Amino acid sequence: MNKKIINLGIVGFGTVGMGVVKILQHSPAMFTEKTGLRPIIRKIVDIDKKRHRDVRIPAWILSKNVQDVLDDSEINVVIELTGNESAARKILLDALSRKKNVITANKSALAKYWDEIFAAARKNGVEVYYESAVCAGLPIIQVLQQGLAANRISRIFGIVNGTTNYILTRMDRDDYSFKDALVEAQKKGFAESNPTLDINGYDSLHKIVILSSLAFGKRVKIEDVYVEGIDKIEVSDIKNGAELGYVLKLLAIAKEEVNKEIEVRVHPTFLPKGHVLSSVEEEYNAVYIVGDLTGPIVLYGRGAGQMSAASAVIGDLIYLGRRFVSGMSGRVDNIWEEKHSDLKIKGINEIRAEYYLRFSVVDSPGVLAKISNILGMNDISIAQVIQKSRFSGSVVPVVMMTHEAVEKNVQRALKLIDHLDIVKAKTVLIRVIGVRS
Amino acid sequence: MNKKIINLGIVGFGTVGMGVVKILQHSPAMFTEKTGLRPIIRKIVDIDKKRHRDVRIPAWILSKNVQDVLDDSEINVVIELTGNESAARKILLDALSRKKNVITANKSALAKYWDEIFAAARKNGVEVYYESAVCAGLPIIQVLQQGLAANRISRIFGIVNGTTNYILTRMDRDDYSFKDALVEAQKKGFAESNPTLDINGYDSLHKIVILSSLAFGKRVKIEDVYVEGIDKIEVSDIKNGAELGYVLKLLAIAKEEVNKEIEVRVHPTFLPKGHVLSSVEEEYNAVYIVGDLTGPIVLYGRGAGQMSAASAVIGDLIYLGRRFVSGMSGRVDNIWEEKHSDLKIKGINEIRAEYYLRFSVVDSPGVLAKISNILGMNDISIAQVIQKSRFSGSVVPVVMMTHEAVEKNVQRALKLIDHLDIVKAKTVLIRVIGVRS
Repeated sequence: MNKKIINLGIVGFGTVGMGVVKILQHSPAMFTEKTGLRPIIRKIVDIDKKRHRDVRIPAWILSKNVQDVLDDSEINVVIELTGNESAARKILLDALSRKKNVITANKSALAKYWDEIFAAARKNGVEVYYESAVCAGLPIIQVLQQGLAANRISRIFGIVNGTTNYILTRMDRDDYSFKDALVEAQKKGFAESNPTLDINGYDSLHKIVILSSLAFGKRVKIEDVYVEGIDKIEVSDIKNGAELGYVLKLLAIAKEEVNKEIEVRVHPTFLPKGHVLSSVEEEYNAVYIVGDLTGPIVLYGRGAGQMSAASAVIGDLIYLGRRFVSGMSGRVDNIWEEKHSDLKIKGINEIRAEYYLRFSVVDSPGVLAKISNILGMNDISIAQVIQKSRFSGSVVPVVMMTHEAVEKNVQRALKLIDHLDIVKAKTVLIRVIGVRS
Repeated sequence: MNKKIINLGIVGFGTVGMGVVKILQHSPAMFTEKTGLRPIIRKIVDIDKKRHRDVRIPAWILSKNVQDVLDDSEINVVIELTGNESAARKILLDALSRKKNVITANKSALAKYWDEIFAAARKNGVEVYYESAVCAGLPIIQVLQQGLAANRISRIFGIVNGTTNYILTRMDRDDYSFKDALVEAQKKGFAESNPTLDINGYDSLHKIVILSSLAFGKRVKIEDVYVEGIDKIEVSDIKNGAELGYVLKLLAIAKEEVNKEIEVRVHPTFLPKGHVLSSVEEEYNAVYIVGDLTGPIVLYGRGAGQMSAASAVIGDLIYLGRRFVSGMSGRVDNIWEEKHSDLKIKGINEIRAEYYLRFSVVDSPGVLAKISNILGMNDISIAQVIQKSRFSGSVVPVVMMTHEAVEKNVQRALKLIDHLDIVKAKTVLIRVIGVRS
């Protein structure tokens, strides 16, 4: 067996960095067996040298200075795990410009600086791997790039954030409020101490930007994607949806129909209970992909965690190692060329969907007529209604599920409805994935 | 873009072969965009030249003689889709010996002649791809080889045969008998006109031999694997299982525990209703894999069909094409080296499982005591019992779910029980995947 060496520099020695080092320390033989290469960690960089870590490394390996990795001409793979998007951008570009291959877990840096990063990789004839950036150890990047390479992808529906899925599960199953469910998620270690990016949907946004760019072979820009988080969701909406046969998920959606504009968006979404994603609960992730040849495919698993993310990083490293051994010398074949057709993403106002609407109205005669009248005038037809409480004069919820309608019509109707005297609070709108979507 | 050429020979022009040709005819630009290569079909071989086919090819491309592919020195990839295992073996070995890369869909040839085929590939410095051999377009081979490469795999539970899953779904949902459900599967086009290999479990056997060999990095031999089909399953057993909280699936199982013998087997299996595989219905396939780093992962989708299988073949071809362009020249890196540790597969008698047992007994006093006495003496303890009908003197079913027990003890006990006067038919045994398995 070939005993050549692969020299590594790791930047960022936090949770995932420690996981990567653990695997390389505990299973160097596995790595060698699968690649023919002996992995050597030449340098680990982190600004915090003192932090307690549950892996032992020789003191001289740890540095505060990223130049120690960049300037080491022996290092041919830089593993970037900083978690800071602008630091990551600089490290990636610097490493690529020195003709070092990079592996990164930084989804926001990839989503924001994709063009810059891949242009640098092409220019320097080196490669960029990022399996860990989306759903950690669930190998969704490789499946899109390779396994499904022959397919035209028409749909990606992803539950790609474990924290929010855990929160929605607790709200649904145990009637927790959003806030209580969040506290529970933090206790269980699923949510970060600052869980803003999870809750406001931006973590899912970064992931769907990467997945849809790959799936469609076109650059999806982060600023073109509509995003809405779960922080305004109330338990009553989840319960109402359940009564109508739906389950609420924070869904990352990408759709491409032949000769139509692409849709890419992230928002809370009601799924019919029969949909395969509706049973994905707790902190689990799942990505539903429709290829024209394969039909629907689902990948399901935990999309986070130290060792799961490290699994993806080492998986990339094994792949890269095999390419080294094969005599591959920096052919950037894992990304499409820059031949972007002018890509337009449909604005949220232009989409067609079914809608869950919860009106807060005074319980008096004629209310339903007034609301349905405005909906009708805006081309919105009603599929189901729930109206339960009956205390004359008090404010009660009226829930409606519409047939497919155009979003701007719905928004226009809601503006009119929310100005009615009988309406006492802003109407709640949740988009629905229909059975035929 | 590079306009180099990849020259193909296709052997076997049946359903999948036609699918492959359709994709290459309809989307040559897609292939070129993803690989930089122009695909040229130089020859298609099939013994039946007259059969009606819904793809048009120039008459001179079609031949009855496989030598036309083997002797063409321009052809560097042979796509083998004959469906006949001994013909496939010969074609693969001949192609490899002429230093042609091969792509094959032939699971039984791979399962039986693995050593011979990969030895020939290594010897000749060419490669063997076979994504389509297991679950068609569901990219389970690539996920095991690459995405999960850093993991030690401890479990594979696979629903890998769509025909039998469709039959079991119809029996469960619509109370069809096995025979009626089989006829329905044939009408729907899921089952072959000769569905023997589906029903007797051998199709699943071939697939789990390939998956477990890959997952464990060791050669699993077909003759060491226990296999049992679904042809003896009765609707009443499915209903009894449902009552106890279980769903019946034909499961392909591979287990490896540290320092223990490997288990590889195929048989009808009761799964707890909470298990993620229990909701895989109709003709769908799913493979549940537990990696030490990733935890449980599931791939779900249709595991058969013309275009799905063709998707896998073209996916392999794209992968291979990219390696050509990268200057890779026949490094067999996608299979492990021949360093097989002496692998022992646990015999079916040695496994530990929970068991569903249905006794056919005379309904008279003391029956339950006699049976439980024999079970107890053989270290088998009972978890649940169903005994319903009460027509004194007639033959009634008694259903028991055991705690975990050793199979040989169960078999010994059943031999004793089936000899009792009060027992009127051979006891039905179905293995159960416990919640902790």
